[in-house]
Amino acid sequence: VRTLSTPARPPVARILTIGDELTFGEVVDRNKAHMARRCRALGLVVESMVTVRDRVDEIVDALHDAAFRAGVEVVLCSGGLGPTTDDLTAQAVARAAGVPLQRDPESLARLETLFAARGREVLEINRKQADLPAGGAVLANPIGTAPGFAVELIPGDHAGQHGMVPSGRAPCLVCCMPGVPREMHRMLSEQVEPRLRERLALDPAPARVYRVFGRGESQVQEAITPALRELASSSVALAAVLVHYRAHQGEVLVQLEATRASTGERATEVDLIGFDAPFRDALGRDLYGIGEADLPTRIVRAAAAAGVRIAGAESCTGGLASSLLTAIPGASACFVGTHVTYTNAAKAAHLGVSEDLLAAHGAVSQPVAEEMARGAQRAFAADIAFAITGIAGPDGGTADKPVGTVHLAVAERDGQVVHRRVRLPGDRDFIRRTASLGALRLVWDGLVDRGVATTDHSSAD
Amino acid sequence: VRTLSTPARPPVARILTIGDELTFGEVVDRNKAHMARRCRALGLVVESMVTVRDRVDEIVDALHDAAFRAGVEVVLCSGGLGPTTDDLTAQAVARAAGVPLQRDPESLARLETLFAARGREVLEINRKQADLPAGGAVLANPIGTAPGFAVELIPGDHAGQHGMVPSGRAPCLVCCMPGVPREMHRMLSEQVEPRLRERLALDPAPARVYRVFGRGESQVQEAITPALRELASSSVALAAVLVHYRAHQGEVLVQLEATRASTGERATEVDLIGFDAPFRDALGRDLYGIGEADLPTRIVRAAAAAGVRIAGAESCTGGLASSLLTAIPGASACFVGTHVTYTNAAKAAHLGVSEDLLAAHGAVSQPVAEEMARGAQRAFAADIAFAITGIAGPDGGTADKPVGTVHLAVAERDGQVVHRRVRLPGDRDFIRRTASLGALRLVWDGLVDRGVATTDHSSAD
Repeated sequence: VRTLSTPARPPVARILTIGDELTFGEVVDRNKAHMARRCRALGLVVESMVTVRDRVDEIVDALHDAAFRAGVEVVLCSGGLGPTTDDLTAQAVARAAGVPLQRDPESLARLETLFAARGREVLEINRKQADLPAGGAVLANPIGTAPGFAVELIPGDHAGQHGMVPSGRAPCLVCCMPGVPREMHRMLSEQVEPRLRERLALDPAPARVYRVFGRGESQVQEAITPALRELASSSVALAAVLVHYRAHQGEVLVQLEATRASTGERATEVDLIGFDAPFRDALGRDLYGIGEADLPTRIVRAAAAAGVRIAGAESCTGGLASSLLTAIPGASACFVGTHVTYTNAAKAAHLGVSEDLLAAHGAVSQPVAEEMARGAQRAFAADIAFAITGIAGPDGGTADKPVGTVHLAVAERDGQVVHRRVRLPGDRDFIRRTASLGALRLVWDGLVDRGVATTDHSSAD
Repeated sequence: VRTLSTPARPPVARILTIGDELTFGEVVDRNKAHMARRCRALGLVVESMVTVRDRVDEIVDALHDAAFRAGVEVVLCSGGLGPTTDDLTAQAVARAAGVPLQRDPESLARLETLFAARGREVLEINRKQADLPAGGAVLANPIGTAPGFAVELIPGDHAGQHGMVPSGRAPCLVCCMPGVPREMHRMLSEQVEPRLRERLALDPAPARVYRVFGRGESQVQEAITPALRELASSSVALAAVLVHYRAHQGEVLVQLEATRASTGERATEVDLIGFDAPFRDALGRDLYGIGEADLPTRIVRAAAAAGVRIAGAESCTGGLASSLLTAIPGASACFVGTHVTYTNAAKAAHLGVSEDLLAAHGAVSQPVAEEMARGAQRAFAADIAFAITGIAGPDGGTADKPVGTVHLAVAERDGQVVHRRVRLPGDRDFIRRTASLGALRLVWDGLVDRGVATTDHSSAD
C-alpha cells in the first residue's frame, strides 16, 4: 500500500482485451470503453488500450510490455477465461508472472455446485476454468462460471529479458476478468475497484459534462468560448480546467476536466458548477442536461416523477425511438406505447392519418407527422406523443425529399403540436438514430415547458 | 510492389485508433472492429490493435512500435484528423516519418469549396486539415472535410532509436483515416484497400460461418464434433481447417478458417461447403443460416422476396425487435408495423387482449403472448406476426416469474400460433435483445415452414 498523499503523477492503467473474435473484428469491443470509463472515474490514467489474439506468447508480450517497458501500475484484462481450447489467458498470465497454474479448490467446488444445479455434467474442459496462476487472488464471479484473478508482475524478475526496467519499480497488478460484459462489469466494481482504491493513491480529477442537442461541435465551441475565457481569467485553478468537445449522434458533449496548475492548484467539483449558469445563457435550450444522464434517461426520470404519460408513432425509425426509451429501467412508469406504422395503410388504420392527407402530401411531410403525433396521443390517451416519419435510405429519396429528410412532431393532450423538419447526413443507422433522438428532444422540450424537467445535474445511475 | 506469389507468412496489419474520447471510455470504438473485419477479408493478419490518446509523442511511439519493433507491413489508423487543437495525428505521423507538414493545395481548395457551398467561413483551424505529412499520398474524403493520407515509415531511418530493426526490412505503410465511422468506411474501401491489394501479396484464407440460435456454445461443439472428426480424417487440407466458436446474444457462430497444412495444402472455398450437410444434420433447425447475413437480414430478404408481410406486438422489448428488422435496408418490402403496448390497457385496446385474460394469467403469460400475436396479425393484416411479453428487469420479477421470464409467440394468417417460453439470464439489455432475437427466430421458422427461407449461404451485403 502506498502513501495516500496526492501523487505527482496519477497511477497509470493499461487496458488489455484478449480474443480472436476482437482481432477478427467479429465483435465490437465494449469492454474497453467500460473499463476506461471506470478508470477515469477512479483517477487512473489510461494512456493506451491494447487488444491481442488468443495466443499465449502474444498475451505474455503484451503483459510484459505494459508492466516492464511502459511501467504501468495496473493492467485490466478481459477475455480468454472460458472453457474452450482457445481460452488461454490464465496460462499466459502464469507464464508472464513466472508461476505455475494451480487448480483452485474453492472455484472448482463452486463450478461443480453450479453445474449440478443446472443438471449438467462437469467436463474436464469446464474444470480448467478453476486453474489459476499460483499465488494470485481469486476474483469471484457470482453470475458466471469463470472466476477472475489478480496477479502481481514483479519487474525485477524479468529485467534480463527486457533491459529497460529501472530498479525499485513497483509491481504491476494484473486483474483478469471474463469477456462476458455483465460478468466483467460486476467483477470490476465488486472485486477489482476496491483493490485498486486500497492499493493506489487515487485522486480523480473533478469533472463535469454538459449535454447539447441541436448544434454542431464548432457552433457550441463558438457559443461558449467567451464564457470560458472569462472564467479562465478569474483564477489559476479555473485556467487549468481543460475543455473537451465530443460530437456523438447529433449531440455534442462539453467536458470539463480540472487539471492541476503548475502551482498545484486545482478547481473543485463546486468550482466547476460555476460554469453552469454561463453555459445555460450561451446555449439556451440546446443545453438539455448536465451530468452523465443521457436524453432517454432524463426523459424517463422526469416523466415518471411527474406522472406524464408518453406515447409514440414511428415510421422510418421502426421502433428505435421507443426502444431507446424502454431501454431505461423504470420506463413503464411513463411510457405507454407506440404504433410503429411502416405502411400508409397502417398510418391510416392506427393513427387516423387520412388517406387524403397521405395522398396530398406524402407520408414524409409536416401534416402527416403532425397527424401521426395527434393519432398516437389519442390512441394511447397520452399526455405527450412523438411522431417520426422520414426517409432513412439508402433508397427512397427524391430530389424534393432526399434521403435524410425527416419530419418530427410532438402532440400534447391539449391539442398543441410542435413540428420540426430535419435533413440528416449519414447512413441509414445514423439517420434512424439521430431522428429518434430528435423526436425525444422535442419530448424533452415539452417536459421542460410543463415545468417537470430541468437541465440540472443528473448522474447516470 | 512485391511479387504476387503466395507468401510464406501473410502480411501483418496493426490497427491504431487515436483519441482521448476512446481512452476516456466515452465512445465505444466500432472503427477497430470494422478495420479488423476488412483486414481479415483481405488476407491481412491483425495480431494486435492499439488505442492511444491525442498526444504527439504517444502516437509517434505507437507508430514506431508497430513499424520498427513489431515489423508490421501496414498500420491502419483512424481518428485525430479534425480541425480542433486536440487533433494531432498528421503532426505525429509527420514526426514519426521524419518529414514536415505541408499544406496540400488540392485539399485546401476542396475545403474552401465545401465551406463556400455551406455558406461557412474557412477559419485557420479548418485550413489545418489540409496540412499533411510531406511526401505522403492524399486519401480523398468525398463525404467529409478531413482528407486522409498514407505515409511510408522506413525502418532504417530510425534504427538508432530502437535498436531492433533488421536491415533490409520493408517499409511500413501508415494509412490515416478520419474517426467518423462512415467517412472511415468509405475511405478504407475506396482509397486504402486498392492500395493494399496492389502493394501486398494478399492471399485470404477461405472461411465459412455457420449461425446457430437456440443452443449454447458447448452444446453446439458437442453436436458437430463427430462430423468435424470425420471430415478432418478425410484429407490433410480439411485437417488444417480451424474451427472457432463464438457465443453472441444467444446465438453461436461456428467459423471455419482454412489454414495451410505443413505440406502447404489448404482447403478451398468449395471444400468448406462440404461442412454444410453434416452441420445441417447435426444441428437441425437451430442452424438458421450459413454466411455473414444475420437473422434480421435473412428474414427481410426472404420475406421481401416471397411477399410475406410481417407485423409485431412488443411489450418488454419496447420496439427493439421491430427496430432490428427495420434497421435492414429494404425492410419496407415486408415489414408492416408493430404495436408497442407497454400497459395492459394498450394491450387490450390495440391487440384485443381481453381484460379477463390479463387478469387471469397476467401480462407475462402464454395466453397473453398468443393473443398479442393474433391481435397484431389482425391489426396489420399480416401473414405472420410475432409477440413478446416478459420481465426485462431490473425490477418486476416474482418468485413465480423471475426477471428474464419471456413469452414469445408467432401467429400465422391461418390462425396457427406457436409459443415459446424462455428464461433468460443477464441484465435488461441482454434480456431485451435476446428476447427480440428469440421472437425473430420464430418468425424465421415460420418462413422456413412455408418454404420461402433456407439456411443457404448468404453474404452480408
